[in-house]
Amino acid sequence: MPQSAVSFQISSVSNAQDPMIQQKIDLKTKPLGALGLLESLALQIARVQGAMLPQDTLKIAHPTLLVFAGDHGIAAQGVSIAPSEVTRQMVQNFAHGGAAINVFCRQVGFKLEVIDCGILTPVEDVDGIINQRLGAGTEAIHLAPAMALNTVDKGFAMARDLIERHHQAGCNLIAFGEMGIGNTSAAAAIMAAMMQLDVADCVGRGTGIDAETLARKLALIEQALLLHQRALTGPKAVLACLGGFEIVQMTGAILAAAERKMLVVIDGFIATAAALVAVKIAPNVRDYLIFAHQSDEQGHLRMLDFLQAKPLLALGLRLGEGTGAALALPLIQAAVNFYNQMASFSDAGIEAVV
Amino acid sequence: MPQSAVSFQISSVSNAQDPMIQQKIDLKTKPLGALGLLESLALQIARVQGAMLPQDTLKIAHPTLLVFAGDHGIAAQGVSIAPSEVTRQMVQNFAHGGAAINVFCRQVGFKLEVIDCGILTPVEDVDGIINQRLGAGTEAIHLAPAMALNTVDKGFAMARDLIERHHQAGCNLIAFGEMGIGNTSAAAAIMAAMMQLDVADCVGRGTGIDAETLARKLALIEQALLLHQRALTGPKAVLACLGGFEIVQMTGAILAAAERKMLVVIDGFIATAAALVAVKIAPNVRDYLIFAHQSDEQGHLRMLDFLQAKPLLALGLRLGEGTGAALALPLIQAAVNFYNQMASFSDAGIEAVV
Repeated sequence: MPQSAVSFQISSVSNAQDPMIQQKIDLKTKPLGALGLLESLALQIARVQGAMLPQDTLKIAHPTLLVFAGDHGIAAQGVSIAPSEVTRQMVQNFAHGGAAINVFCRQVGFKLEVIDCGILTPVEDVDGIINQRLGAGTEAIHLAPAMALNTVDKGFAMARDLIERHHQAGCNLIAFGEMGIGNTSAAAAIMAAMMQLDVADCVGRGTGIDAETLARKLALIEQALLLHQRALTGPKAVLACLGGFEIVQMTGAILAAAERKMLVVIDGFIATAAALVAVKIAPNVRDYLIFAHQSDEQGHLRMLDFLQAKPLLALGLRLGEGTGAALALPLIQAAVNFYNQMASFSDAGIEAVV
Repeated sequence: MPQSAVSFQISSVSNAQDPMIQQKIDLKTKPLGALGLLESLALQIARVQGAMLPQDTLKIAHPTLLVFAGDHGIAAQGVSIAPSEVTRQMVQNFAHGGAAINVFCRQVGFKLEVIDCGILTPVEDVDGIINQRLGAGTEAIHLAPAMALNTVDKGFAMARDLIERHHQAGCNLIAFGEMGIGNTSAAAAIMAAMMQLDVADCVGRGTGIDAETLARKLALIEQALLLHQRALTGPKAVLACLGGFEIVQMTGAILAAAERKMLVVIDGFIATAAALVAVKIAPNVRDYLIFAHQSDEQGHLRMLDFLQAKPLLALGLRLGEGTGAALALPLIQAAVNFYNQMASFSDAGIEAVV
């Protein structure tokens, strides 16, 4: 079935109300700027939610975390600490509620959904896994394009439908996690292509590989970039040549969520690579992105700098699954709550300490 | 009334069960170490709570945040962005529920108590402020000792009674915040005396003073250290000469909480100075301390290094009140939850990726 190209209409947020929003923040009973990152986050949320009047409140409604899973042909070369079978086993673990992301989502109040975007063998014996399969693992990117170009459009369309369903259900904050053995290789390749960097500046140790595996991973990604160099003509071509099915759908979901003016929480190296592609496709996307966690993956800081992002957390997580996004939700809620609930100097009868 | 010296009996935690605890963490369905700081935090909590068997669970019960308030004679010299009257106004704000710490405690499930340790003028028209007054503000430390030595013991005794009440009520995690215009000056002076550092390495901009105010603050603290140098014979003498009433009670409360094997959450520059004094009095205290937030106050990092502490958050907060501690509670709960709830590789039928 030919898939027509999907396009997204993404508005930038208005900063016309910034003086009102900033004044509301500054008149809270605290020294100017004393809530640090939570203050810039409140300003961003107020812009996204179009707060117009001092009495307008901010709101997080039906926060949802989507874990996109996919397998990677390159994993057969041994670029990770685990074989591809572990992707499927972890998807089952998500379905049974036993993974870190299950624990953290239950704690903070995230609704969790797991999407099979194309793992090697589908999970059949468990409920609750959404089937959006684009294949049974990607092609090995050092030998062939990961997928056809129209598979990217198909993935975008599926992701948009998924986001649309959550938007209709009242969700206004969506977070992204991923599971896919080998996906830091795909993300590093995408990063190198999108930012025109040396692979060595983009590749890291993933969940904990040794020096020999790292050298092999680096060489394979360099081979992939060389193989596809003439085909890497734009963001969608980069996804087709180098991407994973989960990275494609995550990119589409980020674009679709920004189109619906939802807050988008980005966690870790792979989700940041997807965000990078989304911002290259539509720069206005950046206005909607909240960055949850600075991972130890060395290329991550470079992408964050490029995106002018300062994540809320730096806990040394290197697990993926969206764990950093889940752990950041209470901080996002805190930004909303201080904006809505704190007394102003005049409310409290306090001399303004400004 | 003469106050007899208060002594605390604080046991170190046992690390005899570390291999069992670490194995339990390592067999969770994640790569080794992939939950970063949350893993070392879970190990610490398991030690404090004496987890002996793999099936033992960890627990946070009745988490309570105490805000200690006091005024400082030195504040009359203009070392802060606000006059001492603001201490009282903020205490009223706490009582009315309008401050940042109220908002964050409500959100995360901290019970909040505010203790008047000796603000200039007591608050009389509101309920819910606990009276543990040691005076009406301290003496100006550049001219006289902040308080008498037996006032320190009196403060320690009051703090121990307060902690005892919470311990009896089932609380096993206690966090500390403070409010007191001028208290970064007292904390910096204490830090300089306890760590034998130059004042310039300890003094910072507090909630946001300008360069001229900073120079005045530095000169006054140097004057105080010179005035009291022969009297600074030990931690309690340091508190008496340089301390604030809220810092004294916070120090006593940290010691008392460690004595009762409670988890102790330390937030920000002033609470860290109190923790430093507590550790100097009884080094075993360190085993019970969880550090919530790395503030922008320049001396803070130095104290944290000395205490070998790596805080959970670095959000650029400079508000005090215990706001960092409140925001860290969900992360502490996440450490407990992954330890208790995550599936092991054998539970989930997954090949161990170790």
